[in-house]
Amino acid sequence: MSQELILNQRVVLASRPQGSPTPENFRLEREALPDLQDGQVQLRTLYLSLDPYMRGRMSDAPSYAPPVEIDAVMEGGAVSVVEQSRNPAFKEGDLVVGQTGWQTHSLSDGKNLMQVPKDLPSPSMAVGVLGMPGVTGYMGLMNIGQPKSGETLVVAAASGAVGSVVGQVAKLHGLRVVGIAGGIDKCRYVMDELGFDACIDHKSEHFAEQLSEACPSGIDIYFELVGGKVFEAVLPLLNQHARVPLCGLIAQYNAQRLPDGPNYLPLLMRTLLTKRAKIQGFIVYEEYYHRLEEFMQAMVPLVKDGKVRFREDVVEGLEHAPDAFIGMLEGKNFGKLVVKVS
Amino acid sequence: MSQELILNQRVVLASRPQGSPTPENFRLEREALPDLQDGQVQLRTLYLSLDPYMRGRMSDAPSYAPPVEIDAVMEGGAVSVVEQSRNPAFKEGDLVVGQTGWQTHSLSDGKNLMQVPKDLPSPSMAVGVLGMPGVTGYMGLMNIGQPKSGETLVVAAASGAVGSVVGQVAKLHGLRVVGIAGGIDKCRYVMDELGFDACIDHKSEHFAEQLSEACPSGIDIYFELVGGKVFEAVLPLLNQHARVPLCGLIAQYNAQRLPDGPNYLPLLMRTLLTKRAKIQGFIVYEEYYHRLEEFMQAMVPLVKDGKVRFREDVVEGLEHAPDAFIGMLEGKNFGKLVVKVS
Repeated sequence: MSQELILNQRVVLASRPQGSPTPENFRLEREALPDLQDGQVQLRTLYLSLDPYMRGRMSDAPSYAPPVEIDAVMEGGAVSVVEQSRNPAFKEGDLVVGQTGWQTHSLSDGKNLMQVPKDLPSPSMAVGVLGMPGVTGYMGLMNIGQPKSGETLVVAAASGAVGSVVGQVAKLHGLRVVGIAGGIDKCRYVMDELGFDACIDHKSEHFAEQLSEACPSGIDIYFELVGGKVFEAVLPLLNQHARVPLCGLIAQYNAQRLPDGPNYLPLLMRTLLTKRAKIQGFIVYEEYYHRLEEFMQAMVPLVKDGKVRFREDVVEGLEHAPDAFIGMLEGKNFGKLVVKVS
Repeated sequence: MSQELILNQRVVLASRPQGSPTPENFRLEREALPDLQDGQVQLRTLYLSLDPYMRGRMSDAPSYAPPVEIDAVMEGGAVSVVEQSRNPAFKEGDLVVGQTGWQTHSLSDGKNLMQVPKDLPSPSMAVGVLGMPGVTGYMGLMNIGQPKSGETLVVAAASGAVGSVVGQVAKLHGLRVVGIAGGIDKCRYVMDELGFDACIDHKSEHFAEQLSEACPSGIDIYFELVGGKVFEAVLPLLNQHARVPLCGLIAQYNAQRLPDGPNYLPLLMRTLLTKRAKIQGFIVYEEYYHRLEEFMQAMVPLVKDGKVRFREDVVEGLEHAPDAFIGMLEGKNFGKLVVKVS
């Protein structure tokens, strides 16, 4: 079968950011997609997921995953449609999700692709509430957080992909749930649409007092996605035997050096000791992806029944991915950020 | 039966310390012991245990246990002999251990007393390697540390009561064990007598580099007893999935305010995230005392066979307890500090 030439658009890492990323750190390129080989599938990207962890991949500081190389395509998960298949596990028209990167097309040997269920309200959910962010929130909450009815949970970035899942699932388990978000619109959405008991604006001048007032019985679970000043306000409110699942630190990702003092590290250690509390970092791919079936069985019905709601912030066109990503690190998105690529 | 008058000597908390405790924070008193009642035992203290946690009880800052009140007897565990018993569970001559405080005599209803096995090489072991510090080290290591053969463990205060148990038990489980101690004599003892693979002097100018060199494969378990500068040197060496059981922070207990910057809290959080590491505070009485039998079955044979060795620093006379305690917070003791009271 003769192959037609496919022009792939892709966003590569042009340079490593110093502090906040700028548009100059990215470059949009066009290239001919290589020929499809036996065992491969040819994919067209539908929805590219933009997530805070990608900031880590732009840096060559040691982390849990190697950095994106300069001039290489930016890493990212996406939902794609199979356009051609020379792999018996996939057929034309299948929807799949995988780490295919910031590009309009890709080839894959199929090894790290997963089929997207056909009956999702939107295929983009496979990179959102029913994808990596959803698994992160659900598994971190259930396994490290170990929620118990009557306890109080706090989660920041509460209108976002992970935070919204964490809070709603905790509510279903009978917890008092307090969100933190940036601005009154997001806070209203978190309370009115997602059903949190309270939501505090982290931009408020009296943020720490308001958080304390919203947690009259202290905090049993703090699901950590942001770090920085929010965590410093949470620290004195932690209860005996508090659990802190830690999977993101968006407020710190652009930092170029340690902040000035005072040094809060001894206070944290003292708090963990006197409260017998636990902080545990986790990476969803490594710890929980083998338990994806358990997750889907729990979450798909909740999403279909509207018990777990979900908001997307959809940007049209791959060329806008860099600006959308830069804005996300500043909290400009409202809901799970995805790029509609084609 | 007529009762003879017993003169009890006791050390009470005269005032709360600001920073390091001073002799003026304590007062030695004499009082007549109240009459023995039905159900009570009358105890004469043999060995009083001095432990870092007592610094916390001298302060009225919120902690996991209420503070000692001003003019009340200092809290502490001790081995005592039953002098008279009106409680059927105890008879004259029994050796018991309990939180009987800094005093020569006490009355008890027996509820929180435990019998000391008759065949211990020394009854003082019941407040040391086979008592609270031993349980702390063994249970924290096994349950939170979860040692695996071939891993590297680091423990500070390595010649002390908890650290020496942690390191020797870890060695028996096939770990590389690196101690930290203050001064060359303690380090030599930790290596030559306790069999650690290395021991670093935290007073050394090049402490952080030496610790790094002693841990060529990084650190899998850091058993945290000290906090402060030692923890800051450990932090960059933590491996993927590192575990940090936390049950003491002796280097911080006398601090009156947060240290100057930089603020290491964001670095800690980043380390926990990128390394998927865990810090967990625990209090031995609460978490592990119901599993004392399991501990004794594991440890008594190791101690009797000389596989877990143990050094005591014995001070004679209750009147010297305050000075000995103050010195312990500065690292002046060499081995488990006990006061021989009578």
